Amino acid sequence: MTDTVKQILSWYASESPGVQANLYRFLTTGRLAGTGKLVILPVDQGFEHGPVRSFSPNPAGFDPRYHFQLAIDAGCNAYAAPLGFIEAGAAEYAGQIPLILKCNNHDLLYTDPEAPLPAVTAGVNDALRLGCAAIGFTIYPGSGARTEMYEELRELTAEAKSVGLPVVVWSYPRGGKLTKEAETAVDVSAYAAQIAAQLGADIIKVKPPTYGPWDEKAAEAFEKAGVRVDTLTERARVVLKGAFAGRRIVIFSGGEAKGTEAVLQENRDLAAAGSFGTIMGRNSFQREHDEAVKLLQDVMEIHRSGAAPGYLSEQVAVSA
Amino acid sequence: MTDTVKQILSWYASESPGVQANLYRFLTTGRLAGTGKLVILPVDQGFEHGPVRSFSPNPAGFDPRYHFQLAIDAGCNAYAAPLGFIEAGAAEYAGQIPLILKCNNHDLLYTDPEAPLPAVTAGVNDALRLGCAAIGFTIYPGSGARTEMYEELRELTAEAKSVGLPVVVWSYPRGGKLTKEAETAVDVSAYAAQIAAQLGADIIKVKPPTYGPWDEKAAEAFEKAGVRVDTLTERARVVLKGAFAGRRIVIFSGGEAKGTEAVLQENRDLAAAGSFGTIMGRNSFQREHDEAVKLLQDVMEIHRSGAAPGYLSEQVAVSA
Amino acid sequence: MTDTVKQILSWYASESPGVQANLYRFLTTGRLAGTGKLVILPVDQGFEHGPVRSFSPNPAGFDPRYHFQLAIDAGCNAYAAPLGFIEAGAAEYAGQIPLILKCNNHDLLYTDPEAPLPAVTAGVNDALRLGCAAIGFTIYPGSGARTEMYEELRELTAEAKSVGLPVVVWSYPRGGKLTKEAETAVDVSAYAAQIAAQLGADIIKVKPPTYGPWDEKAAEAFEKAGVRVDTLTERARVVLKGAFAGRRIVIFSGGEAKGTEAVLQENRDLAAAGSFGTIMGRNSFQREHDEAVKLLQDVMEIHRSGAAPGYLSEQVAVSA
Amino acid sequence: MTDTVKQILSWYASESPGVQANLYRFLTTGRLAGTGKLVILPVDQGFEHGPVRSFSPNPAGFDPRYHFQLAIDAGCNAYAAPLGFIEAGAAEYAGQIPLILKCNNHDLLYTDPEAPLPAVTAGVNDALRLGCAAIGFTIYPGSGARTEMYEELRELTAEAKSVGLPVVVWSYPRGGKLTKEAETAVDVSAYAAQIAAQLGADIIKVKPPTYGPWDEKAAEAFEKAGVRVDTLTERARVVLKGAFAGRRIVIFSGGEAKGTEAVLQENRDLAAAGSFGTIMGRNSFQREHDEAVKLLQDVMEIHRSGAAPGYLSEQVAVSA
Amino acid sequence: MTDTVKQILSWYASESPGVQANLYRFLTTGRLAGTGKLVILPVDQGFEHGPVRSFSPNPAGFDPRYHFQLAIDAGCNAYAAPLGFIEAGAAEYAGQIPLILKCNNHDLLYTDPEAPLPAVTAGVNDALRLGCAAIGFTIYPGSGARTEMYEELRELTAEAKSVGLPVVVWSYPRGGKLTKEAETAVDVSAYAAQIAAQLGADIIKVKPPTYGPWDEKAAEAFEKAGVRVDTLTERARVVLKGAFAGRRIVIFSGGEAKGTEAVLQENRDLAAAGSFGTIMGRNSFQREHDEAVKLLQDVMEIHRSGAAPGYLSEQVAVSA
Repeated sequence: MTDTVKQILSWYASESPGVQANLYRFLTTGRLAGTGKLVILPVDQGFEHGPVRSFSPNPAGFDPRYHFQLAIDAGCNAYAAPLGFIEAGAAEYAGQIPLILKCNNHDLLYTDPEAPLPAVTAGVNDALRLGCAAIGFTIYPGSGARTEMYEELRELTAEAKSVGLPVVVWSYPRGGKLTKEAETAVDVSAYAAQIAAQLGADIIKVKPPTYGPWDEKAAEAFEKAGVRVDTLTERARVVLKGAFAGRRIVIFSGGEAKGTEAVLQENRDLAAAGSFGTIMGRNSFQREHDEAVKLLQDVMEIHRSGAAPGYLSEQVAVSA
Repeated sequence: MTDTVKQILSWYASESPGVQANLYRFLTTGRLAGTGKLVILPVDQGFEHGPVRSFSPNPAGFDPRYHFQLAIDAGCNAYAAPLGFIEAGAAEYAGQIPLILKCNNHDLLYTDPEAPLPAVTAGVNDALRLGCAAIGFTIYPGSGARTEMYEELRELTAEAKSVGLPVVVWSYPRGGKLTKEAETAVDVSAYAAQIAAQLGADIIKVKPPTYGPWDEKAAEAFEKAGVRVDTLTERARVVLKGAFAGRRIVIFSGGEAKGTEAVLQENRDLAAAGSFGTIMGRNSFQREHDEAVKLLQDVMEIHRSGAAPGYLSEQVAVSA
Repeated sequence: MTDTVKQILSWYASESPGVQANLYRFLTTGRLAGTGKLVILPVDQGFEHGPVRSFSPNPAGFDPRYHFQLAIDAGCNAYAAPLGFIEAGAAEYAGQIPLILKCNNHDLLYTDPEAPLPAVTAGVNDALRLGCAAIGFTIYPGSGARTEMYEELRELTAEAKSVGLPVVVWSYPRGGKLTKEAETAVDVSAYAAQIAAQLGADIIKVKPPTYGPWDEKAAEAFEKAGVRVDTLTERARVVLKGAFAGRRIVIFSGGEAKGTEAVLQENRDLAAAGSFGTIMGRNSFQREHDEAVKLLQDVMEIHRSGAAPGYLSEQVAVSA
Repeated sequence: MTDTVKQILSWYASESPGVQANLYRFLTTGRLAGTGKLVILPVDQGFEHGPVRSFSPNPAGFDPRYHFQLAIDAGCNAYAAPLGFIEAGAAEYAGQIPLILKCNNHDLLYTDPEAPLPAVTAGVNDALRLGCAAIGFTIYPGSGARTEMYEELRELTAEAKSVGLPVVVWSYPRGGKLTKEAETAVDVSAYAAQIAAQLGADIIKVKPPTYGPWDEKAAEAFEKAGVRVDTLTERARVVLKGAFAGRRIVIFSGGEAKGTEAVLQENRDLAAAGSFGTIMGRNSFQREHDEAVKLLQDVMEIHRSGAAPGYLSEQVAVSA
Repeated sequence: MTDTVKQILSWYASESPGVQANLYRFLTTGRLAGTGKLVILPVDQGFEHGPVRSFSPNPAGFDPRYHFQLAIDAGCNAYAAPLGFIEAGAAEYAGQIPLILKCNNHDLLYTDPEAPLPAVTAGVNDALRLGCAAIGFTIYPGSGARTEMYEELRELTAEAKSVGLPVVVWSYPRGGKLTKEAETAVDVSAYAAQIAAQLGADIIKVKPPTYGPWDEKAAEAFEKAGVRVDTLTERARVVLKGAFAGRRIVIFSGGEAKGTEAVLQENRDLAAAGSFGTIMGRNSFQREHDEAVKLLQDVMEIHRSGAAPGYLSEQVAVSA
């Protein structure tokens, strides 16, 4: 139990010991154990993008066991996947790595640009019987169907917390009036992180914020407050602040497959902002096994030596 | 137990002793304890408007603990917020100030001008486990989705009262055929207060009524009855009467951030009408801490010396 | 208990012994017992296409008992049908052949090309009281109503597995933007198999993939990976891989009625790919009894001598 | 499906197809498949008498897997055991032999001669998740606690039948005024079989009736009716008649360990009476494996060539 | 994941992945991680014997946090205690050591020598909210109230397993006709272990068997089978065999406080028998902290170098 882990858990004092114990498991597993940083392997692309696009680059990934093993081999803090992928390895790998059961999923065979809505595909009882340490859920702020998502999440969250399971929320702005660019605007990303946190998320996953503010009023607010959002590091700080001033664990997703140096640089920038780490799917499982392990471990080292997570260094007692 | 508090509680004789005991807690906490007046700090703007716009003016507000502390420092009667903000401080501040759990929320990343509908984001069980003294809920009379909101409120109200929790309703006309101006017309505001009260609200929050009647028939009615609605004080009296002749607690929201004098004057006008107080978010937490405390306390003094709340001075026994 | 059956069951180690026992029954019944291959008789066309079209070619099929008897006479592994057909023979044929209760059905008297949605017509309790060994369910990936289907399936799956019943999913892309051709494109079929597997299906039924990729990105992925999809055998391998690298039982449907040689050739091609067998309705029950039995048994011999099911021959330890 | 099996199932026409399908499984498994006769291996002595006494004679029996394998090797119709023994092999032997989950058990570390009462140790949900084909339950007619047992059985029976599981009842008179001798008196045994049948048992297990009537009035009744009960065969016929004139499956237990010839002779006498078979524990699993298999198979041959089960040869239509 | 752990988990293949994952946690925590051996700290004596007797020898033990810390300091596999003791440290030590919630307890302020019956004092929901990895339960075979205990355990076991929690059973013969000596007789201990296993226990705790058989028939059985029970090692082997031939985890309790050498020798004898370890309360927490840590670690080394757990070395395939 490091001081960092102790401090992070202190932010979750309203949660039951069961939820805290599972958060502790995430924070004390793998190569980053005890650092307050997390590198998580998520593999939901089989559902989200289809198996051909997702697994052809590294065909070993068609086999669900491959991803359990990759996460273990690389020393990840956790592995996240939909029901079927978890079922296909939960017995064989029982207890060997904390699991996050993705409880809703979306596929590309039908698309509704205005009101995208994932289907709820698993529940809290599934998580318990499969030995998972958390449930995961995706919301699309900006979607015409966001209300339905928020309310589904609320139901699952109440149930999960009542049995000691933390909730990991993928908060991806999408749909409605949001342009492709707006989806990762710094103010929109911070808003997405805030919404997840307000809905009770224990761990929040957002995409790296790629450009300056989308909303005029946000631009004014930044200007008045003298906040710069020119670099990824600056923008990531805004997002972390948007999640309760860094008092909720926020990790950034790796997004589309890209070159190794691009991955490393992105993580360096995020780590400099005090990111809690990354959740990196395609950039790991689409690489050949040993290359993926090396990349994941290189990324872990970047986060290990990054800024203290969530502005830990800046936090002072509110009542002081 | 002052006579004022006793008289106010007498209007809630149909509620269980549990509900009454929580109302008593609101009425006997903070600097206004015993006066029948309430100044409440609400912070749901992180969800409603996004964190960048809401907290950049005073970045201390990114930290959820800040608001608990501000409410305590200023001597507010209560603090109201969504699930995540409450969770982020409920253990640390357990018991130190009455909490109102906002159970639905709306964000700006998707907007539906015709039928705005907040998502239900928390429930009665959450309120109980987090030690809240009431639940809060927003309705938009005028929205194409109002029926859904009223029915959600009805379910939550029944559940809340069955476990001794009062219900605080934010009643904000919006959507459908209502123009921006109509949203705060005196007859519309009074109507909104009435709907909340008819739905079983124990405490009602409305916006200050900004102009004369919107509806022609209301105008005729005022004329026939010789009711003047030229000043804010006159209009506020109409709204208070709309909430069961002052026999339900009605507080006015502070609305957009504005200058200090404007805030004080608005409160003077409302206090003159017999308002039960105010619920003031942006005008407090977006100011720097000490300035916010001073403003909140100045407002408290205005309400302390205002007219008796809810026409108390005029009320006579119905059967007399 | 053959080694093949043992190996197949090992993929379902997360399932309860009850689910495994019913899978064992499918794998050890009929002429293909112990081979890991399945030939199943499905008769839901009375509901799906109407009785006149379905049963006029061989009027004996109007009688529900005919199909139980046909499946038994031919030595099928199982018989699948909607509630009414099962009820009409379940007592008379109790225990004589494993039954799959089709729990949703779609008819042609109303069609919604954009968002086709079958009705849920039976449930888990029906399956238990009727002595069925599994439930069956159809999803239409691509339909505007897919979310509803996925969520219905999720509920039924959780209930079925909790009482020891496996779940058989018919995954038929249909609706929305999918053209008739796209419905059986190799990448779409593989995607459909993946979605079913991710939703927790124990046995998956898809249509034979009839042509090259529909999605450009899939085409690119095939090209980069050097995967050929020119022949049915090559395409079927892609689909099997899409279902967890062959670690879920996938059988191909026979589709429209066609000539005997066409049926046999299609099955030869599928068997060469390592298909787990076929589920063949119209091509069997619309033929006269003895001819149908002969065709079914010829197909069984083809699958018996086909490639090891689900790439069994290629599988290597993940961690090796 | 033999005529014998068809006729036996016809007696259970009030049961759901699910219950009938499971009865069919018992009647069509093992070396006696299709004969209407059953030889079942029960191993509850670890609980009932303790492991030292039960398994020391053949220490292989300490291992729960041994008994699954013995039942399969010998070609038994089913294997019956308490929860723990079933759990310890249900996955490994999933589907390989019909299982009966003994749902109540009694041990010898405390005895209450007046009102013996087994504990309920498993339930219908356990049976479903473990893939069992029936539940088993022991009643002690004559016990001061019989009412409690009958009512427990009634609850379990209603639940089991609603999910398609038949009920096997061990009916062992014991306790109260019953002497050791009375426990197996012909009239008492017939009474015990009747009570089980009246409680809804599908299969009834009683001890072989060892002597003439215990009750005077029964003796008079036999005399008046000219019924002889001098031999085991004669007495067994009375017991079978007591179970609805042979229209419920009645099997006799083997009782204490004894010499091979004694076992064979007892079974010959019972088979001559039209017994449906035997359920033989200690006399099989306490022998060394190959000897046990031989004895079980010898007993099977005796029953195969015995009288038609349950007076089938004598039965005439009631309305004829 | 060692081969030993893998083999032990294979005995629990009927359990859900959730139960297996928690068993894995016990087997991979502390200094004995991966060895298949367990040393668990149990502290229920405050309830069972009163605080004065229990904690006066080492007053640090009055503080519930002391025992969490002691278990961690010594490198135990788990810590077991009643509800209150767990609640008093569960948040502070969340996740740091696997917890077993003792769900029933017995005190000495009232005694019923004939029919002792602990009270059910906690439940499965408590275990989940407190982050426990298993529930614990005590049965007293031999008690006139044993039926009630077995049925309470059955209910809790079904509920616990359905949410992924294993069940640890303390099986302590007591009450009725059992003399003090009989309570730890080898045949009685083996019987107690068998009953726990038959009731579905995943881990079984019994007292070390102190003398030769209590029951005459057991004595005969030992003699016939040539089983010697003269030494503690020999007797412990009988008990392990009684728990499904070593296929259930059995650990021995340390019993009354005694001298260090006596503790070590007892553990050497048990380890030689293939014990899975020990659960040692009074002999650890009643010693001063550093002495307790040393003793616990010395005991761990004894078990580490003991015989393979549960006859692992002797086990051969049943069907071989």
